[in-house]
Amino acid sequence: MKILSQNTAFGGMQGVFAHDSDACKCEMTFAVFVPPQAVLERRPVLWYLSGLTCTHQNVMEKGEYRRMAAELGLIIVCPDTSPRGNDVPDELTNWKMGKGAGMYLDATQEPWAENYRMYTYITEELPALVAEQFRVDMDRQGIFGHSMGGHGAMTIALKNPERFRSCSAFAPIVEPSTADWTVDAFEKYLGPDKAKWREYDACALVADGARFPEFLIDQGSADSFLENGLRPWLFEDAIKDTEIGLRLRMHERYDHSYYFISTFMDDHLRWHAERLG
Amino acid sequence: MKILSQNTAFGGMQGVFAHDSDACKCEMTFAVFVPPQAVLERRPVLWYLSGLTCTHQNVMEKGEYRRMAAELGLIIVCPDTSPRGNDVPDELTNWKMGKGAGMYLDATQEPWAENYRMYTYITEELPALVAEQFRVDMDRQGIFGHSMGGHGAMTIALKNPERFRSCSAFAPIVEPSTADWTVDAFEKYLGPDKAKWREYDACALVADGARFPEFLIDQGSADSFLENGLRPWLFEDAIKDTEIGLRLRMHERYDHSYYFISTFMDDHLRWHAERLG
Repeated sequence: MKILSQNTAFGGMQGVFAHDSDACKCEMTFAVFVPPQAVLERRPVLWYLSGLTCTHQNVMEKGEYRRMAAELGLIIVCPDTSPRGNDVPDELTNWKMGKGAGMYLDATQEPWAENYRMYTYITEELPALVAEQFRVDMDRQGIFGHSMGGHGAMTIALKNPERFRSCSAFAPIVEPSTADWTVDAFEKYLGPDKAKWREYDACALVADGARFPEFLIDQGSADSFLENGLRPWLFEDAIKDTEIGLRLRMHERYDHSYYFISTFMDDHLRWHAERLG
Repeated sequence: MKILSQNTAFGGMQGVFAHDSDACKCEMTFAVFVPPQAVLERRPVLWYLSGLTCTHQNVMEKGEYRRMAAELGLIIVCPDTSPRGNDVPDELTNWKMGKGAGMYLDATQEPWAENYRMYTYITEELPALVAEQFRVDMDRQGIFGHSMGGHGAMTIALKNPERFRSCSAFAPIVEPSTADWTVDAFEKYLGPDKAKWREYDACALVADGARFPEFLIDQGSADSFLENGLRPWLFEDAIKDTEIGLRLRMHERYDHSYYFISTFMDDHLRWHAERLG
């Protein structure tokens, strides 16, 4: 693991690191905030998955998570959103596909299958590295994210309820297999057989029996992607006859930006800290 | 005034605006955060001056001021650091001179004198526009900034003690007329006569009789510019035999970055709010 930068912040350390990824067959970069409490003891770890077009850097600069993470003693890991590098396939003029749009799935179709294995990267390879390199308590993990990363957080939690104690999302794509901006990527990554898409779709996962105790979702009413891309009401419907809990909060005048994310970041960190102990 | 963007954040509004500047003879961009309390009444205004290479955008994205500004009801104005545009002279390979390095002074030398009039812009033109366009209480103004912007805040406060009730700085350049990274710019903007430099130098201003009630200065001990550029001890010396108050806090392990600024942002906003009433 290479150290790209380390800066003191809020009594802790915001670092950026790179490593050669076996899962994605390229160098991957990620950010970790270590709170001051980690000097004394292992601390809970919270995974933040970013949205389309982002790298690890956007939320690190604009998410405003460090003050409260330092107060609550949470380690925050912010991975990249796709494989990177000159040898990684891409659609240069399409921001909803390829680099910056890994969709937190393992692609099965060419030319994507070789590198686009973000599900394995986020659930296996990166946790192993983080467990080895930082003072994390891997028995206390939570996961959250924004937009495409909200989709990633919810599907990963639903598929791994034994591993995560908490999950939340800012403006998540709750049904990517039918959403305007994700259908094309799902078809290219996973092929035309829509049955294969269901394991990466929060609503379909619930319909197929996946369970997680409860979710917090914040959503802006002025989000321009609400009607065609996000549609949290579909998840509300999906869980209706289950024991899954959902705290869905709609916020008037808020859009899809980091101004929205940063406004409700403290609430999400508290939500996780309460469940991570 | 053109609206470039407006986003809801922390119950208030973060906007970015542009206007044709008479002082700088170019279009100028600035950011304003309006807290929710401004719906009801005029609120105090706090001017944030940024450092070398920055625009209005850096602190807007990375300064983490909105949460506390919304709580305290402060309007935060973040101007650009220099004139901009293709017709504005610059030294393209020198980040300490020209665009992004206006030094908050009125240049008197060619080719700079035409556009580089940031002192007049910050103290006259922009306040008039802000007073007209936003619900500000111009009887309650504070000023703060970082690095070159800390220099700007301190010199502007010392020259206008009747206008500002509060001043603070993150890692300010307290004596730019003798600092490694500012001497060259001072000579180019103001000419070789160093007597002319004194009105834009906090230490020299105090020596020449300028007064301001008190300053808060935060400074990181791991700041790589500390020894040759910033040197807050020079200001400590400069005010020794005066009534000027100084709360100078050194912070181990902190550097010159926005990680440092954001960590102590809340303290600065409280410092100003206490003095702005």
